[in-house]
Amino acid sequence: MSLTFQQAISRLENFWGEHGCLIWQPYSEKVGAGTANPATVLRVLGPEPWNVAYVEPSFRAADGRYGENPNRMQLFYQYQVILKPDPGNPQELYLESLEALGLSRREHDIRFVEDNWEAPALGAWGLGWEVWCDGQEITQFTYFQQAGGFSLDPVSVEMTYGLERLMIPIQGVRSVWDISWDGVHTYGEILRPSEVEYCKYNFDHADVERLKRMYDLFEAEAKDLIAAGLVIPAHDYVLRCSHTFNLLDARGAVGVTERAHYFARMRDLARDVSVAYVAQREEMGHPWFKSVRGSRIENSEVAETAEPVKGPAAFLLEIGTEELPAADLDTALEQLRVAVPQLLDELRLARDPVRVLGTPRRLAVLVGKVAPHQADVEVEVKGPPAKAAFRDGRPTRAAEGFARKQGVAVSDLQVRKMDGGEYVVALKVEPGRPAGEVLAGRLADLVAGIRFNRSMRWNESGVSFSRPIRWLVALLGERVVPFGYAGLSSGRVTHGLRPLGSPEIDIQRAGDYLRLMADNQVIVHPAERQARIVEQINDLAAEVGGTIPHDPALLAEVTNLVECPTALRGAFEGTYLQLPRDVLVTVMRKHQRYFPIVDGNGRLLPYFVAVRNGDDFYLDQVRHGNEEVLRARFADAAFFYEADTGKPLEDYLPRLDTLTFQEKLGSVGDKVRRLEELIHPVSDMLGLSPQEVATTVRAAHLAKADLVTQMVVELTDLQGIMGEHYALGSGEPPAVARAVREHYLPRFAGDALAQTAPGVAVGLADRLDSLVGLFAVGLKPSGTADPFGLRRAALGVVQTLMGRQIRFDLCAGLRAAAELLSVPVTEEALSDALDFIIGRLRVVLREAGHRYDVVDAVLAERGHDPYLAVQTVTDLGAWVTRDDWMDLLNAYARCVRIVRDQPQIYELAPSAFAEDATRALHAAYERVVAQVGPESSPTELFTTFQPIIPTINCFFDDVLVMAEDRTLRENRLALLQRIAALTAGIAELQVLEGF
Amino acid sequence: MSLTFQQAISRLENFWGEHGCLIWQPYSEKVGAGTANPATVLRVLGPEPWNVAYVEPSFRAADGRYGENPNRMQLFYQYQVILKPDPGNPQELYLESLEALGLSRREHDIRFVEDNWEAPALGAWGLGWEVWCDGQEITQFTYFQQAGGFSLDPVSVEMTYGLERLMIPIQGVRSVWDISWDGVHTYGEILRPSEVEYCKYNFDHADVERLKRMYDLFEAEAKDLIAAGLVIPAHDYVLRCSHTFNLLDARGAVGVTERAHYFARMRDLARDVSVAYVAQREEMGHPWFKSVRGSRIENSEVAETAEPVKGPAAFLLEIGTEELPAADLDTALEQLRVAVPQLLDELRLARDPVRVLGTPRRLAVLVGKVAPHQADVEVEVKGPPAKAAFRDGRPTRAAEGFARKQGVAVSDLQVRKMDGGEYVVALKVEPGRPAGEVLAGRLADLVAGIRFNRSMRWNESGVSFSRPIRWLVALLGERVVPFGYAGLSSGRVTHGLRPLGSPEIDIQRAGDYLRLMADNQVIVHPAERQARIVEQINDLAAEVGGTIPHDPALLAEVTNLVECPTALRGAFEGTYLQLPRDVLVTVMRKHQRYFPIVDGNGRLLPYFVAVRNGDDFYLDQVRHGNEEVLRARFADAAFFYEADTGKPLEDYLPRLDTLTFQEKLGSVGDKVRRLEELIHPVSDMLGLSPQEVATTVRAAHLAKADLVTQMVVELTDLQGIMGEHYALGSGEPPAVARAVREHYLPRFAGDALAQTAPGVAVGLADRLDSLVGLFAVGLKPSGTADPFGLRRAALGVVQTLMGRQIRFDLCAGLRAAAELLSVPVTEEALSDALDFIIGRLRVVLREAGHRYDVVDAVLAERGHDPYLAVQTVTDLGAWVTRDDWMDLLNAYARCVRIVRDQPQIYELAPSAFAEDATRALHAAYERVVAQVGPESSPTELFTTFQPIIPTINCFFDDVLVMAEDRTLRENRLALLQRIAALTAGIAELQVLEGF
Repeated sequence: MSLTFQQAISRLENFWGEHGCLIWQPYSEKVGAGTANPATVLRVLGPEPWNVAYVEPSFRAADGRYGENPNRMQLFYQYQVILKPDPGNPQELYLESLEALGLSRREHDIRFVEDNWEAPALGAWGLGWEVWCDGQEITQFTYFQQAGGFSLDPVSVEMTYGLERLMIPIQGVRSVWDISWDGVHTYGEILRPSEVEYCKYNFDHADVERLKRMYDLFEAEAKDLIAAGLVIPAHDYVLRCSHTFNLLDARGAVGVTERAHYFARMRDLARDVSVAYVAQREEMGHPWFKSVRGSRIENSEVAETAEPVKGPAAFLLEIGTEELPAADLDTALEQLRVAVPQLLDELRLARDPVRVLGTPRRLAVLVGKVAPHQADVEVEVKGPPAKAAFRDGRPTRAAEGFARKQGVAVSDLQVRKMDGGEYVVALKVEPGRPAGEVLAGRLADLVAGIRFNRSMRWNESGVSFSRPIRWLVALLGERVVPFGYAGLSSGRVTHGLRPLGSPEIDIQRAGDYLRLMADNQVIVHPAERQARIVEQINDLAAEVGGTIPHDPALLAEVTNLVECPTALRGAFEGTYLQLPRDVLVTVMRKHQRYFPIVDGNGRLLPYFVAVRNGDDFYLDQVRHGNEEVLRARFADAAFFYEADTGKPLEDYLPRLDTLTFQEKLGSVGDKVRRLEELIHPVSDMLGLSPQEVATTVRAAHLAKADLVTQMVVELTDLQGIMGEHYALGSGEPPAVARAVREHYLPRFAGDALAQTAPGVAVGLADRLDSLVGLFAVGLKPSGTADPFGLRRAALGVVQTLMGRQIRFDLCAGLRAAAELLSVPVTEEALSDALDFIIGRLRVVLREAGHRYDVVDAVLAERGHDPYLAVQTVTDLGAWVTRDDWMDLLNAYARCVRIVRDQPQIYELAPSAFAEDATRALHAAYERVVAQVGPESSPTELFTTFQPIIPTINCFFDDVLVMAEDRTLRENRLALLQRIAALTAGIAELQVLEGF
Repeated sequence: MSLTFQQAISRLENFWGEHGCLIWQPYSEKVGAGTANPATVLRVLGPEPWNVAYVEPSFRAADGRYGENPNRMQLFYQYQVILKPDPGNPQELYLESLEALGLSRREHDIRFVEDNWEAPALGAWGLGWEVWCDGQEITQFTYFQQAGGFSLDPVSVEMTYGLERLMIPIQGVRSVWDISWDGVHTYGEILRPSEVEYCKYNFDHADVERLKRMYDLFEAEAKDLIAAGLVIPAHDYVLRCSHTFNLLDARGAVGVTERAHYFARMRDLARDVSVAYVAQREEMGHPWFKSVRGSRIENSEVAETAEPVKGPAAFLLEIGTEELPAADLDTALEQLRVAVPQLLDELRLARDPVRVLGTPRRLAVLVGKVAPHQADVEVEVKGPPAKAAFRDGRPTRAAEGFARKQGVAVSDLQVRKMDGGEYVVALKVEPGRPAGEVLAGRLADLVAGIRFNRSMRWNESGVSFSRPIRWLVALLGERVVPFGYAGLSSGRVTHGLRPLGSPEIDIQRAGDYLRLMADNQVIVHPAERQARIVEQINDLAAEVGGTIPHDPALLAEVTNLVECPTALRGAFEGTYLQLPRDVLVTVMRKHQRYFPIVDGNGRLLPYFVAVRNGDDFYLDQVRHGNEEVLRARFADAAFFYEADTGKPLEDYLPRLDTLTFQEKLGSVGDKVRRLEELIHPVSDMLGLSPQEVATTVRAAHLAKADLVTQMVVELTDLQGIMGEHYALGSGEPPAVARAVREHYLPRFAGDALAQTAPGVAVGLADRLDSLVGLFAVGLKPSGTADPFGLRRAALGVVQTLMGRQIRFDLCAGLRAAAELLSVPVTEEALSDALDFIIGRLRVVLREAGHRYDVVDAVLAERGHDPYLAVQTVTDLGAWVTRDDWMDLLNAYARCVRIVRDQPQIYELAPSAFAEDATRALHAAYERVVAQVGPESSPTELFTTFQPIIPTINCFFDDVLVMAEDRTLRENRLALLQRIAALTAGIAELQVLEGF
């Protein structure tokens, strides 16, 4: 008889109560998570210890599914545990708590999957994992790094169980609604009616105006209470703000900028409450230090000294960690591959090649043989000046004293020129120290030197790492290389697979490592794991007549998620194949890390392959669990799809008026109306055919409609993709549908580009509108802040024009966009926007390997037309590497240098030229200017210009340009000015090297 | 090691989970009690079974004490249990749950003390008890009768544990703040800082305007949701309304009428939510009937038939109940004393005297001997007409057939005159049926016939009683008298004392009852219990040199609260004696049912006497508990006193402006300002001296100030009493202080009257203002509704004027009051108000035994002056019983009758009288009218009038009043009209009997 819901809660209360937690109660306000309960969000602040556990009914308005999804709903029950400080073994405690519920790590695939948690409204973030049970997320496990804007010290461990999802495998039911609550009633009987009601309220009935007024009242009250120092009453109102915001959001009443404003307001409140709480506890003198339980972190100073080994011996360093994120594992191995050989060489330790291995739970360095001692080294010790050391060729007392002190014979002293004089030096051989000793002194730094994109603290040592380090193995042959780090001392004990209970494994000799790991089913070599995965998943696909599409990113990730991969194939109902392929694949890949299977025609089959950590024990149960999870995910997608296709795509347009694009620029609906105008000049500039224009106009009309469909609200990545799908479903022409999708392209570096003219046109118009609009209202990106993704937009413009080899005048485009805005656009804003795009183009061109000066020269004249610019850069780039380039440049430069400081452009009077040289030059100029212009390529320019170089040089040799006679002088300058201007519109040669 | 707070909760969860309850969680809104959680307030509606238990943190803003009271705070933790339907033994289950917590009923005094629960804002009420442990309320135990305006069927049993108060005896701590929560932290460490903050918020910082706006928004949202049928989201907003109201109330921002409005609004919302919930469950088809557990109530039909007894035998009826309220026990015993003899007589059962006994848990009827059979009875059966039965003196066939049918000899037939003819009759002796049989047929009705002021249902039988009946004993000698009632069948098993576990006691013979009860320490005779109590409490008082003040009401109540009284003396800290005596006594008597002890001078001693149910086992522990409870109560009183005396009484006056008296009549502050005016004419009418007037004016100014002191807000009974106390403390003259107190007198029937003229004056003015004001705005009492206590006010006026023998013209008084009102007062309203007061006077006079016609006669003329009226009634009452009264009345009546239909008053022309008799009558009249007037007493009138009776009679004998001659006629009528008018202003004799 499995546990009822209420018995499971009782077990957790008992478990954590017995493990030193204070058992707390759900909060008296609606919260989105147990984290918001002051027992977490405030108690994690400050230095006092705090261990607490409690149930928290959690409301997330937007997650409601009218009670129709098997495991997703707007109210669910969390079980929240906070351990502060880190007890050293929180994952083990957690897994024991699951055993107490009857969820065995041996019989289920229980995994710690990277999850970086952030709650902007609470000013909080942390690193940790989602814990998966057979593919189902059952817990969030986080090391809090920050809360209320405070850096936390000590760090708190937070475990948030999703009780309903936990019950599904425990009771073996297919849906949360079928969970037995008390042996009599199901969860659904108790909560489904209200779930449906709340969904109706959240999505359909909540009165937006009233909620906004409530929000303002709550906020005002919170502020007063913060000012009065009343922490908890203030916090209550902050929670009310937060819940009210969630309702507004679910109701679709919050635009992008408005959302940012709300978040800022909530973050400010949360920070102020935190500050008040911290001050209060300080004032109270932190009374809870008295109640510290459990062990404090031991001092990581190591008393032991390394015992020397006799001969060459294998070296092993294993850093045992809690599950590393896939990317962090890669980056750590990469760094070790460089750092370890460097270190050993620096230490003068002769060695075999270094092998760097790793799994999510260990980073290992293995060297077949390392010399027992450092190589000896000869050192030169500087003694007294030679004059003082030798008098008449005989050593003085000074020399004798120095030799004695250095332990060398006087006769071995040598004289060297150094430091501007001659000195006596003693040459000494410093013998190498034992390998263990020198390694012991450097391993801590080696570990500390590994850097991650984001790292975290977890215990009193204050050390940062990707995830907590829980053991350190360092062996030289049979000997421990003693060092301390992160509160740990190195030893010889490692741990086996999680599903086997992470058994302790005693490593007698470093050389035993690979065998012991293999014996314990831990596949430490990433390549080997990947190979096994490839083989297994392909076999499983083949069994159903399918293949696994090539997906190196997913494969690499999965390889880094397991220590012992066992692939399994699950099935899903064929009816879900009616959903768009992108939806299914996105759900499988991104949410579940499953490999889809396709048939010979590339069509999806109703199967997936998951890779479990561990062997095939209870594999059917694991498969079943994964299938259930995917079913729920697909059900969710189907729910959205069903809802979304209930009306044609065009009918979503009115909702765009409620979605704020930017406060001053209006709604997304306003943006769409601008696009529909802007598309005409843009189409003209792109030279579209009338039919293409018609397609473009329609596509612009529908481009943003999918933003308010539920699928896209839920899976933002599918914007455009769903738009295309829904457009087709609504009977739009395929070209329109395609343009709807394409206008978002490219979405990221390396993404495909829009292939159709309408797709290009809408995408350009959209981005131009955003750029000029946001620059106009003063929202250009600054520092790393780019909330509207303008860098991406500018890059998209550049990449599309370059990639599709399209000429386009961005200047004109921006100006056309500006004319449609309802806000004033200054010339400065326009030129800033253009410069911003050109800045992206500059980066692209430089990264493509073009010389910076060439890029700058071209962009100065042609940045507004990226495709033209890239052609010009290539062309100019070829010229500047020619042997005769400097002649050309110098000739041109002579013309430019003499005129560039002139205050005005002078009138040219060819008939007034006095000398032949001048006349000749003018004639040459006339020939050139007849053949080139601002549109010319560098090659056109230079091939025309090259012949006149001698003429130029003659001119300067013969003629004193700066004549006393003003008329003469100005007429000569006028000619040179015109020659200098020949490059206008092509490239600014003055910025080239050598000018 | 006693349980920690969290362990105790865990025990309760386990206990109730194992007893079939669904374990639920605290609610996500701030509630005042677990009742408000939809798991109670909605689930108790409708027919489906529902058993649930949960913790509920409960917020009662006004109960906050800034964390300074040992057991009172604005947040406390309830443990809520709902059993629906009644399982039949809920008290036993409850007591077992206490044992599970280590609270033994043997070692503590655990009592069920009447408590009628009502939540107007929820449209809910129920009957039950507070459960006391050693004097401390630890639980509310209620049988829900109504919720959301619905009558509940089935009834739910609600148990609400006050977890903190429960922990005090469990952990043996002195204050909730010292409770160990988890073995490490105290309750105070966890919750005291936020308690202090909430108090500051609730009392000082909450923004009234914002809260009112929140309330309106919540209400509007709730209404919309109700309209949309969204039950739970609507309920959430109702809860928010309720909490917001509580905050406004604690903040002192809600006046009396405003409060009534808020309550009405909340009640409406609650009702509408309930209606929607009930409809929803009906629509779902009540799915939870499937989950019925436990036994349904058995059919109360009894198959057993009574076995006859051989000879006279004792009769015992015992109705075993859950604890009856003290007053209900009295009323039930009273009814049985009448009903049982009546029943036995009606059943013709010869018997010894009936003894009626009782305790809170049993109503018992014991008859020493009852005849085994009814007395035989002779009956006459009517046969055929005598003519048809006998022909020629010989019986016909008809007679023979009749005799045969009746089983008598034909010769025994007799002839009787009946029904207007002669018939044959058969005389038959109907033998008495066995006593057991006839009793069996009537006992259910006997029990059902007992009526209570308020009664309740508890199980499917639908039967109503004061509290549930749990067993029935009915024995005639050794035999059970079988009957069924309330789902029970009568038997021979009763139960012993609660502290002993209510052991089953088998009664072999009815005659054993008293012995068995005595053996089991149950003292079934109320008088005996009372005698024991008196002896014990006096002894305990004497031990400390004191006495117990005479207090028959308290004594009677305590007698009815125990089955086995053991008195104990507790002490309290002498410092509390500095509080006003009335405060201490009120707390002891009303809250705790303790007897105070006074010394020889009537001064309180720092002791009290409590009476425990049970023997002296663990008496010290019980005493300690009671002392702790009283300490907390006194601490609370001291808290108020301290707060109240922080400023002079006068400084409270401004707050009266925020306390609404009645919407149209303004605030209590307005009322006070009217009193200060009205007191002048009233003082004039009462003939006060200038010094008295000065005192009166000041007293009127301060009369209501104490209404906004905390002590009076908390203990309303102390209004006036605290006013006097605080006035003295503020340096007011003693006469002023006294008048402040006295103006409320008399507060109830039999209460003391104001003894000082200023006290009388302020009291009169206050009541006149209320009466005329509320009548003016249309709020006169109707039916039983009298929200402003106008009956009491009118009675107070009457009793004061009568008791203090003060002449006062209410007509003038009301008119003076009316002139000060800001609302228009119609003549009708004024006369209605006067009639209303006269109505009370009429009741008083009739209840005093005066003849109704005399009362009516006097009130018709002198009702506006109660003291004059009462004198007049007494006087007239004496006259109407005199032998010569009718002569007097008749003489007067002759005059009246002939003139009463005349359309006008005629002019009297004495010189025009034609006859001697008329002239003589006129002369007689002249003599009378010279000596009496409207102010005369009946005696003055009648002694003057009596001599002219012969003259009157002569006149009517001699003179035809209604002469043809109009002048003559009208002159005679004019004279008679004046004679008839002699009683004007004295009494309206026409309404007297015999007129």
